[in-house]
Order: sequence, then C-alpha cells, then structure tokens
Amino acid sequence: MSNKPYVLEPLTDGTLFSVPGIRGGSRRTGVKPSGNPDLAVIVADQEMNSAAMFTTNACAAAPVHVSRARLAQSPRTRSIVVNSGNANALTGPQGMRDAEAMLHTLEQSCGGPGLVLSTGIIGVPLPTEKVLTGIREASRDLSVNQHEVVQAILTTDTCEKTAAVHIVEREAPHRTWTVGGIAKGSGMIHPNMATMLGIMATNLPLPAEHVRHALRTAVDQSFHRISVDGDTSTNDTVVLLAPPADVDVDAELFEAFQEALTFVAHTLAQKIVNDGEGATRWMNVHVQGARSDSDAHQVATAIACSPLVKTALAGGNPNWGRIMSAAGNANVPLSPENLTLQLGEHIVFANGRPIPVDEDLLNQTFAERRVTVVLDLGAGPHKSSMSTIDLTHGYIEINAEYTT
Amino acid sequence: MSNKPYVLEPLTDGTLFSVPGIRGGSRRTGVKPSGNPDLAVIVADQEMNSAAMFTTNACAAAPVHVSRARLAQSPRTRSIVVNSGNANALTGPQGMRDAEAMLHTLEQSCGGPGLVLSTGIIGVPLPTEKVLTGIREASRDLSVNQHEVVQAILTTDTCEKTAAVHIVEREAPHRTWTVGGIAKGSGMIHPNMATMLGIMATNLPLPAEHVRHALRTAVDQSFHRISVDGDTSTNDTVVLLAPPADVDVDAELFEAFQEALTFVAHTLAQKIVNDGEGATRWMNVHVQGARSDSDAHQVATAIACSPLVKTALAGGNPNWGRIMSAAGNANVPLSPENLTLQLGEHIVFANGRPIPVDEDLLNQTFAERRVTVVLDLGAGPHKSSMSTIDLTHGYIEINAEYTT
Repeated sequence: MSNKPYVLEPLTDGTLFSVPGIRGGSRRTGVKPSGNPDLAVIVADQEMNSAAMFTTNACAAAPVHVSRARLAQSPRTRSIVVNSGNANALTGPQGMRDAEAMLHTLEQSCGGPGLVLSTGIIGVPLPTEKVLTGIREASRDLSVNQHEVVQAILTTDTCEKTAAVHIVEREAPHRTWTVGGIAKGSGMIHPNMATMLGIMATNLPLPAEHVRHALRTAVDQSFHRISVDGDTSTNDTVVLLAPPADVDVDAELFEAFQEALTFVAHTLAQKIVNDGEGATRWMNVHVQGARSDSDAHQVATAIACSPLVKTALAGGNPNWGRIMSAAGNANVPLSPENLTLQLGEHIVFANGRPIPVDEDLLNQTFAERRVTVVLDLGAGPHKSSMSTIDLTHGYIEINAEYTT
Repeated sequence: MSNKPYVLEPLTDGTLFSVPGIRGGSRRTGVKPSGNPDLAVIVADQEMNSAAMFTTNACAAAPVHVSRARLAQSPRTRSIVVNSGNANALTGPQGMRDAEAMLHTLEQSCGGPGLVLSTGIIGVPLPTEKVLTGIREASRDLSVNQHEVVQAILTTDTCEKTAAVHIVEREAPHRTWTVGGIAKGSGMIHPNMATMLGIMATNLPLPAEHVRHALRTAVDQSFHRISVDGDTSTNDTVVLLAPPADVDVDAELFEAFQEALTFVAHTLAQKIVNDGEGATRWMNVHVQGARSDSDAHQVATAIACSPLVKTALAGGNPNWGRIMSAAGNANVPLSPENLTLQLGEHIVFANGRPIPVDEDLLNQTFAERRVTVVLDLGAGPHKSSMSTIDLTHGYIEINAEYTT
C-alpha cells in the first residue's frame, strides 16, 4: 500500500458538475438543424483562477481570439459559453463582433469574466441572435444536474464524454476535493487538440501559475496523445478552472491534484478516441527506445496517422510492414537494424529482420477490437504513445456528408 | 509561332520502348498470386549514363540500398530488373543478399552494370529462386514491343502508365530524339515518390551530370506534386538513362530535352494520380502568393493530404472551411485576413471574410470529377501545386484487404 497522504477515487458517472460550485445551463437555439441542445453556459459560484490551451491552427476561430485576449488580461474566469453547430471560424470581422457579443451577453447574464467556445461548421456566419437569446435563457436555469449541458457541446459525437475523481486525504480530517470535466470531439482529432473542446474544474484552491502548469502537463499526457484523422481544427480549446489561492499549495497535495487532473483529461481523451468517427477498432501505439521524447512522439504520430496502417487495422490485417514503413516516414533518423516491433504479444521484427510468427496467432491479435503495437527504436531511453482508430467506411460516410 | 529551334511532339501510345536502343522482357514468376506478369528486365543496347532518385523512407528496401551503392560507384547502367508482388523491404541481411543475387543474375543475363527495383508487400522474404529464374528467362526474349513489361511492374494499379515524346529539330537536317518512360503506382503515393517506380530513357547523348540535373528538375515538377494517401514507401525509385556524351550538349537542345523529360514525368505522375486507389474525384490544389516555394508546397500538401478535405471531395461537398482549416495546419505562418480562396471559378473567401456564393453554383463546381482550388496566401510571389484524389470506400476496400 502506498504511503502517499492522498488517494484518488474515480466517481462513476462523475462530470464537471460533480465539482462543488460549478453549475450549468443549456438551450436548443435551433442553430443545430437537428434541434438538439446546442448552447451551454457553465458558471462558477466565484471568480476562478483559469488557464486555457488553444488550437495551433493558423486559421483559429473568432472565439479563440476573443478568449485568448481575455485570458491575457487576467486569469480570472467566472463563466463559459459553448455553442455547437457553428464554429464561428473564418467568419471575418463580423465573426469577431459576434464572439464579442457572446462574451458580453454571457458576462451580463451569468457574471464575468467569461470565455467563449464554439464548435461546428466553419466559414458560415453565426446566427448571432439565436445564440444570444440562448445565452440569456440558459442563464436563468442554472443547476448542478445538467444532463443537457453535456449534450449541448457535442457535434458528430455519438456519446457524452465526462469524468471526475475525488482526491481524498488519507488521515483525518479526511478532506476531499473534486476534479471533473466534460469534453466533445469525435473527428478532426489530433495532437494540438483538433475540434476538441474540454472544460475541467476543481474546488481545490490554486495559484494561477499552478493552474497553467497543471493544465499543460495534463494535456500533454492526454489530449495530445490521441489522433482520429490527423486534422487539427480551428476551434479546439481546453480550459481549467480552480478557486484562487494566494499561497502555494502543499507539494504533496498538488502532486495528487496533478495526478487527478491527468486522470480526468486522459479519461476524456480516451472517450473521444473511443467515439472516433466510424471507428470499429482501436490501436495503441507505443514508441520507446528513442533519442528524445519528440522523436518518439513523431514516430508514434506517423504510425497513428498513416492511412495504410489505419485501413489495415480496419481490415484486421496484421500487415506490419506498413507500420515500419510509416515509422520510416516520420523524418526521424532510424536504423532498421536496431528496431524491434511487437504486435500484441508477438515480436515480428528484430535485429534487422522479420521474426516468423504463426499467421493465425497474428491474425487473432489483429482481430481484437484493441490492438497494441510497441516499436522500440533502440536509440535511447525516451518514449511516447498515441491512441488511434481505424479508417473505415463509417468515417467516410460521416465526413463526405457532414456540413452542419 | 515560337522561334525555338526544337519542338516537342507527344507520341500517342508511346512508352519507354519508343526510345531507340531500349528493349525489354517479362515473365510470370508466380510471386504474384494472381499469376500476372511480375518480372521485367529493361536493357539498353549500350552502357548508358544514368541517375536515380530514391525514397526518403528511413526503412528503405534492400533493392534501394543495392542500387544506390551501385550508382555511387559509376553512373553507367546497362540493365534494370523490376519485380512486383514482393518489395524485399525490411527483410534483413537475407534481403540484401537476395537483392545482390538479383543484380548479379541480371548482369550475367543481360549485361551490366545493372539496377534492381522491387515493389509489393513489405517484410516478407523474397521468393528468390523464382525471381532469379524469371530474370534468366526474361533476358532470352528481349524486344521493343513488350506490352507485358509495362504490366509486370504494376501492383494495385488498374491501368498502365506510359508516355513518350519526340524532340524534333525545326530546321534541316530535322534530327529527332525520343524521351519515353513507364511507371507504376496507385497507392502510397506522396511527394518523395511513394511506392512509385518510374523508368525513363532517351537516345539523346548526355553527360552524367546533365542526366542527374535533368532528372531532379523533372521529378520536382511531377512525381513530387502528387499525393494519393500521404504515405511514402520503402521502395520508390525513379531512373533516367541516356547514352553517354563527353562534351556538353547544346544549351537549346538541353532545354528542349528538359522540357520533354518533364512532360514525360508529368504525364506519368498524372496517370498515377488518375489511377489513385479508389479515386472517383480529383483535386488540383494551387497555392500562390507564398513567401517561399517551400511554404507554398507545405500548404498545398496539407490541403491535399487532409482526410477531411478528401472526404468532402468524395461527397462532392464544397465545404471550403475544411480547406482553409487544413491550410492553417501546415505549420506555415498565415494571416487569414490576407487569404483568398477560389473553388473552381468562385471566390469563397477574401479580405478576411467569406464571400457569399450561390450554393447551387458551388455544388455544381464540386460535382465535377475534377475540382480546382486556388489559395492565395497574399504574402509573396511563390507558388506550388499538388494533385490529389478523394478518400473513398474504394480506397478502404483496396487497403483493408491488400496483403500481396
């Protein structure tokens, strides 16, 4: 048994709203043609210290610019609005005015400072009046039991993404804190957070610098390690809120918090990749023995994004040559004679040559819904991993038709 | 009418074997389970000056290593063997011995120096005896009318890729030279020449340095501008052969030759992308107004490789936001307010905002089999282009099943 003074206890069915002091509201504004919930507000009982990580896409959407500018002024955040169905991306000066109007209406209705997140179709002007009316209405009906809030941030998602965990002090007085979150995303998912929205919060008071640091660490271990289709969207944003603290938090408690936050982020990220558009099979790619973390990450990403690897996965086809070839395309110096490739439990390549493996056993490994691939580069102590999905007819159906 | 002293005349149905002095032979060795022709030898009547460009994949196949080492000794080449169905890639020391045995048998049977090219499945030991027997047999039956040679280098290709052009002197004595080529490739096609084999030759005598320079120029304008699935293979190789000349070629004649070679390479590359696995629609992506050629190429590649752009193309869906979003992911600094995007004849984004275009007109543009997209970055005078295909159910069917 660990001697750590804090233990983590995951909450079954826990969400962002499991965190004391966080409430939400939602509306069906009609922006989504389906008529499903498409607007959510999330409100903290007090001004929180906050941090956000935004898309690296050079065509970042208006809400990204507005929220980034807001956070540059102050880390304090009280409320967040998320609209789905329209990304307000590549919408020009009018899009900026629309995002600012959303921020203004949010702060008037729910209290500020606020943040604005959007997801949906790109390049179409926002139906601003519908959205502003939705914000005003949603703010009148805030509660901690907001099933529809979780739905209101979804687009092509087929299921909700939520997670929460308790941090429990082992000794008396057995204080308990909560970390919880919600997310959306099922396509355009790639490191640097493609069409991915995530909102996480805790009731553990933290200095602003700790909030920023913890968020970056958690995202690097979670949302940056999943890929659905290699595309990074114009809108992706992950936010973390924590009550402000002026003094440094106890080091062991912060360590427990970091672990809890990474757990929540990892759980949300896995739920996103599990809901990957059209996915029927999943692959965890572990790259080890690399000269650097970035080498390992680059090779894992090249494998996880290769259409040939992803179609082989769709076919349950243990065509490991494609995995090696994808690794060879990663723009990382590799020595084939030092590579070791393992599919499931079977080493198929080592010491510069293929290792004969019973074909039925290999086929069995690739017939599983979840396949693990380990590639050792034999060049150093560094490692990374990526989770990816197969490339299927379902992916094409969803994306050949999706315009809303 | 141009005043140039040489004119180009494309040859209908021209091939590599339209070049005087180039003969070929082929065999069905049984390496391909289909029983189709799978081994070709190409033999020049004399030792030629030669150059080759090879894959940049770090897991390059044994024949790539063997041919590269051979060319490092001398630019002279007399014969080439191509086997399809087995790439002899990631096959370890035995693979190197097998490729060397192919070279040795080729040089004994057809005269050397030789080159070895392979394409097919990765990571499976070469059925060497079948291949060596095939080389010996094919060499006994060389001719200039070798329809099956063109077929013997194919794998998932659905059609042959050939091209040839005459360079004709405008004034008496109206001398004529020929440039011709054959190629294979339909998947794993991407700049840096994914599972792409190309063999081109001319009867215009050239110094070795000119052969190298002309090949690089032609490939940069052709094979490096097509993408089927973003994967670069372990085996891709493009070769150019020309009779040796000790003195410099006339500058205007060399200019005409370069134009002819680029035409042949471009025609072969377009035939490859036209035969892209599962393709139903094609997109030409032109990026202009870039700060540098490499910026332009990087943005064009990001658009041409985006699964979301390629599925939109499959669905005939003018979702131009995905094109802009893909451009934003190219790791090239972009200013959205300077971008101009044109789909077919319609400008859909300019001056930082969407331009309303009649939806029916846009849909018509995207209903065409060939779509042209022009993105102006508004940042400089440089440009590049890429040809790509849609991502379809057909691509998945081919690649989920392909193991041979």
